[in-house]
Amino acid sequence: MPVNLAAPDPSALHPVAGLELGTARAGIRKPGRRDLLVVHMAEGARAAGVFTRNRFCAAPVIVCREHLVASAGAIRALVVNTGCANAGTGAQGLASARQTCVDLAGLLGCEPSAILPFSTGVILEHLPLERLVAGLPAALDDLAANNWAQAAEAIMTTDTIPKVASRQATIGSAQVSVTGIAKGAGMIRPNMATMLGFVATDAAIAPKLLQRWVQEAADESFNRITVDGDTSTNDSFVLVATGAGALRVADEASPEAGELRALITAVARDLATAIVRDGEGATKFITVRIEGARSETEAAAVAYAIAHSPLVKTAFFASDPNLGRILAAIGYAGVDDLEVDGIDLYLDDVHVATAGGRHPDYREEDGQRVMKQAEITVRALLGRGSAATTVWTCDLSHDYVSINADYRS
Amino acid sequence: MPVNLAAPDPSALHPVAGLELGTARAGIRKPGRRDLLVVHMAEGARAAGVFTRNRFCAAPVIVCREHLVASAGAIRALVVNTGCANAGTGAQGLASARQTCVDLAGLLGCEPSAILPFSTGVILEHLPLERLVAGLPAALDDLAANNWAQAAEAIMTTDTIPKVASRQATIGSAQVSVTGIAKGAGMIRPNMATMLGFVATDAAIAPKLLQRWVQEAADESFNRITVDGDTSTNDSFVLVATGAGALRVADEASPEAGELRALITAVARDLATAIVRDGEGATKFITVRIEGARSETEAAAVAYAIAHSPLVKTAFFASDPNLGRILAAIGYAGVDDLEVDGIDLYLDDVHVATAGGRHPDYREEDGQRVMKQAEITVRALLGRGSAATTVWTCDLSHDYVSINADYRS
Repeated sequence: MPVNLAAPDPSALHPVAGLELGTARAGIRKPGRRDLLVVHMAEGARAAGVFTRNRFCAAPVIVCREHLVASAGAIRALVVNTGCANAGTGAQGLASARQTCVDLAGLLGCEPSAILPFSTGVILEHLPLERLVAGLPAALDDLAANNWAQAAEAIMTTDTIPKVASRQATIGSAQVSVTGIAKGAGMIRPNMATMLGFVATDAAIAPKLLQRWVQEAADESFNRITVDGDTSTNDSFVLVATGAGALRVADEASPEAGELRALITAVARDLATAIVRDGEGATKFITVRIEGARSETEAAAVAYAIAHSPLVKTAFFASDPNLGRILAAIGYAGVDDLEVDGIDLYLDDVHVATAGGRHPDYREEDGQRVMKQAEITVRALLGRGSAATTVWTCDLSHDYVSINADYRS
Repeated sequence: MPVNLAAPDPSALHPVAGLELGTARAGIRKPGRRDLLVVHMAEGARAAGVFTRNRFCAAPVIVCREHLVASAGAIRALVVNTGCANAGTGAQGLASARQTCVDLAGLLGCEPSAILPFSTGVILEHLPLERLVAGLPAALDDLAANNWAQAAEAIMTTDTIPKVASRQATIGSAQVSVTGIAKGAGMIRPNMATMLGFVATDAAIAPKLLQRWVQEAADESFNRITVDGDTSTNDSFVLVATGAGALRVADEASPEAGELRALITAVARDLATAIVRDGEGATKFITVRIEGARSETEAAAVAYAIAHSPLVKTAFFASDPNLGRILAAIGYAGVDDLEVDGIDLYLDDVHVATAGGRHPDYREEDGQRVMKQAEITVRALLGRGSAATTVWTCDLSHDYVSINADYRS
């Protein structure tokens, strides 16, 4: 059961002018389910992306990086399959990813380098290329501007709910839409981007800004979530600016640029936190906020030590205020000169620890009250400086073990 | 159910001349269980220790470090309680640890600085000092040289089986005994040493050798195991040389020194692997062997990435050869210039992956056969150099979640 995350309402998703989506049932892993997505952009669209730093990166990630360079970001389509990650598949996997682009380019009448391929699913198994390619015409027949919800469904793996986010704003005198989809529930500790995230806007954005913003939006959203600490082989986050709307942004210092950047980051954060809310087996949504660090790197190290600790995560699952486990995680986060006497720990509004020990006013029932909530903020003040960061995670439940023990069956 | 680990046979445990152990039921957390241990050494014994690097280290760890310096290693007794870790307890916790030593020193007629205190159990709760101190006379009444099995039982927390190891050898012309105990099942990713480990020998060992060997033995045993990646606040490993036997070792280059060092390390490794075999919820014992690394640090980073991955660990629990998860973990281990084409992955004798993908001869049924075993070796050849290391871990099961969700209840 995802934590405070509802199925998308298609009527609340703003179409993005200059972009259409189509899905198909290609039978890639299981028959009868929507497992193939094509996103088609009108000429003039520009894309930028960030990708996993996992050295065993998937074949489509390699091809995406090549094509973004070769096309200078003038991308005409994304093609995404679920059911097979096409990772750990060597030369054959790379050939399959390239052939997917060649075949789709033939159908669309564009260069193969104008296509970005994405895959998600099981690692170390070969992509069923013939079935994928055979499904492309049906996906193209389905192309429509209001297919965002179906698109989100077509890229799911262990997700229980499709993940979409959409915002509209008037920036300057132009109405701007930003809509995106994402997938992911396990193998989530993005290092660059999440498993798969796509955000599109109808604004026109200068290429150098687009590349910077996709990285910055990732850093403030997908790069700040974790379910199980496992960085995927396929993490990809792509930002598309179709330019079909009225807004044109080229000067980073303009007020319009600031507003659009904030809108894009907000959609990315909606999607990223949706991934955590639907994290495998999640019953709690946990915000870990670290303040008073010497640097953001230090704050992130402490936040991730807490967010990755199986002991902390099982305590949240049990609603058990066994809060010494949080102190222990702070203590082993790798901050060598950390003085524990200067640390204050809060659970929502409850002051848990100070001066190296339990706060004198802390009462077990106060901790218990907060731990029972579905959404909890852990806040640690390190007392060392002024840097801060926030990381979002979930608890570790029996269902996480069940889901991952049974994943391939 | 621990993996291939039987309850100790007291008759197989060699007493260590110059050392006696006594236990008591002090009611520290629960009434009626053995929860207090005193180890008493004859005059002339020397001790050395390594302790957790967790910055939130427990009060007794701070006192141990002080007393080892103040006494120059001339330690007369260890006192250990279970049920309360005395960590995250601030100034009051430190006072309780010191008072424990003062009271025991009074009973034994020695300096408080000749006592090393240890605690294990729940963090962030105060030590019930009065009950602990009231139990000391009973523990002293119980002192005997053949109490190793009872001692191992008295320091357990979520352990299901007491952990002891004992070896005897003739070194030079002297018969030497090395016997030790350890505890720990969760919050196990020692960084210096494990939760609690004590190894004693009747040999006399020169102080500078003793200090070096305790570190080296830890590095080859307790520092190479992980259950859940959580480095404890209380990790302590102490090596005692009573000098009551016939062997005297002062020259590191002598053949006797090499043999004794190997014997001590073997006992430490027996204890460390016993902790993994009895890891919380463990159903599999996994050896992760990394070869062909550029450095041991690099090999350890890759080994721990595999050993800590919840996805890898749940696949072992399920006996599911979902081996792409191992490749993914290798890929995100932080070796930035890793070339995945040069990696070979084996599961016991089965060659799983090569050249960035699945080995052409790999068959699912071969992987399945190995995954069903209770003991499995993952071996990755990185093809980058000649450094290697071994890490021991266990799987991640439903019982891990249950045990840690219910720990305090």
